[in-house]
Amino acid sequence: MDEFDLIEHAFRQRASFVHKLTRLPNGDDASIHAVPEGQEMVMSTDISMTGKHWPEDFPLNDAACRAVNAAVSDLAAMGATPAWMWLGVMAISSDDADQMGQGVAMALESISMELAGGDIVRSPVNALSVTVAGLLPQGSGMRRNVARIGQDIWLCGDAGLAAHGLRQWQQGKHEGNHVPYFRDVRPLLNEGTRLRELGVTCCIDVSDGLFADAGHVADASGVALHISLEKVRGFPSLLTEMDEQEAIRLALSGGEDYSLLFTADVGQRESMQTFARRIGECRKGNGIHITLNGRKVNVVSKGYDHFS
Amino acid sequence: MDEFDLIEHAFRQRASFVHKLTRLPNGDDASIHAVPEGQEMVMSTDISMTGKHWPEDFPLNDAACRAVNAAVSDLAAMGATPAWMWLGVMAISSDDADQMGQGVAMALESISMELAGGDIVRSPVNALSVTVAGLLPQGSGMRRNVARIGQDIWLCGDAGLAAHGLRQWQQGKHEGNHVPYFRDVRPLLNEGTRLRELGVTCCIDVSDGLFADAGHVADASGVALHISLEKVRGFPSLLTEMDEQEAIRLALSGGEDYSLLFTADVGQRESMQTFARRIGECRKGNGIHITLNGRKVNVVSKGYDHFS
Repeated sequence: MDEFDLIEHAFRQRASFVHKLTRLPNGDDASIHAVPEGQEMVMSTDISMTGKHWPEDFPLNDAACRAVNAAVSDLAAMGATPAWMWLGVMAISSDDADQMGQGVAMALESISMELAGGDIVRSPVNALSVTVAGLLPQGSGMRRNVARIGQDIWLCGDAGLAAHGLRQWQQGKHEGNHVPYFRDVRPLLNEGTRLRELGVTCCIDVSDGLFADAGHVADASGVALHISLEKVRGFPSLLTEMDEQEAIRLALSGGEDYSLLFTADVGQRESMQTFARRIGECRKGNGIHITLNGRKVNVVSKGYDHFS
Repeated sequence: MDEFDLIEHAFRQRASFVHKLTRLPNGDDASIHAVPEGQEMVMSTDISMTGKHWPEDFPLNDAACRAVNAAVSDLAAMGATPAWMWLGVMAISSDDADQMGQGVAMALESISMELAGGDIVRSPVNALSVTVAGLLPQGSGMRRNVARIGQDIWLCGDAGLAAHGLRQWQQGKHEGNHVPYFRDVRPLLNEGTRLRELGVTCCIDVSDGLFADAGHVADASGVALHISLEKVRGFPSLLTEMDEQEAIRLALSGGEDYSLLFTADVGQRESMQTFARRIGECRKGNGIHITLNGRKVNVVSKGYDHFS
């Protein structure tokens, strides 16, 4: 089977949804898309690779599905509605490409996203380069550089559970109770849209660990983020399964959470607490300051670095 | 140096151009872009990999530069103006990433395109996944499925010279007279825009070889393409350096040309001949029919298949 047939079979046939704003779909030199007046296009790109973003023995269909969902999480963090995806597929074999195609189709179907283009190449390693596009009303995109002193810090989702699941998998516990948290990435799209509609302006997706991603907000906004770890969803359940030091490490630096961290004015607490946990506050200063039941927590590991 | 610093240094700092329609540049979870009323977004994605798209001993900066330009050629074929690029970088080492960053910056600078996002991962092989976005007036994108019986076939650019240059390189002739044709991909952006403005509707970029890409037009449009090989620019010069069979193979199936093949009504010959060569005509039927000075040419190899 040649290059053209392969991408056709493994990907295109399984992902046939065409977005209503597409003017020329997959199959020409390029695809063409309309962006309605008053809307803006939101774009992000992520690479995911065997051995870096999932274990060598992880099923490739699940891996590809989570690669797509992880990329889409960046759209959720902006408050965007996903529309299109472009895929660079590196596959060791046609069988591997086929399995990745299954996973990609599974992810796309659950979020009504179009596979608008792709390219495939035989490679010594299985990897996916995923570029996603979403839409949102002009000027409403949430960003990381607008946290203000006095605002609350909120976390929608949990921290550390996916990293714990990954560790269980790596220890051979493939049916481990936390493995699904790692395997099934669910981008918080509805939540992101709702936050944007509620007027939230500062939001980031937590993918490299709470400590590293909160750090991006602090650095970009020029404020200090004070976080009470005991308030973070997921952390208490980690404590029941491991010692405190390890639970802290997973919750702060484990990565792969795909939660949304955002800030909001104190007056908005009532609307926020239905779908997020208030975990701290923005103060004058810089950096991330973590406490656990009032005690200061020193963080050693900064976050997961895929280029290592 | 960690993942974040690396992509910052190797790529972002060298490619600092920001497009006037960008609302939020590189550096957040996603970038945000406006698309003016009456315009559409044109998108394409290509993977390029060491050993597949360039020889193992080819300089990585030149390789990365041509990878970007090759992706941009798809925008030229639609008649679009390039605007933004997203990059997935797979690099064996920081040095390799740095060299690729040099080449990417070189390509972007020459076409005023913004590096709007990217991701990087350490990999056993050097590769780039390049996603490009361009803009064009609503409904004016050229495509491959609208060639009509009776139209002329034109080629803007040449065929076979880049493949000859690649062969010279592979034979150790790194200063070979045709090597620059392979090394320096020049996407025919002005030509593509001009064709679109002149009302051309059917166009394709020739990247897998004249035979394969003309075949896409024939298949998609439901016509036969009759091409006179002696009229193709580049072919006569190939004949002076190799036997006829080999010249035919390179011109038809060598690939890497990044020429534009398009069709136009007979009445438009005068405006077209200033920047393209008329190489044949569309007739009733199907498939590609090649002649050389009136003799039928049988084509064995169909085109370069990167997944092999």
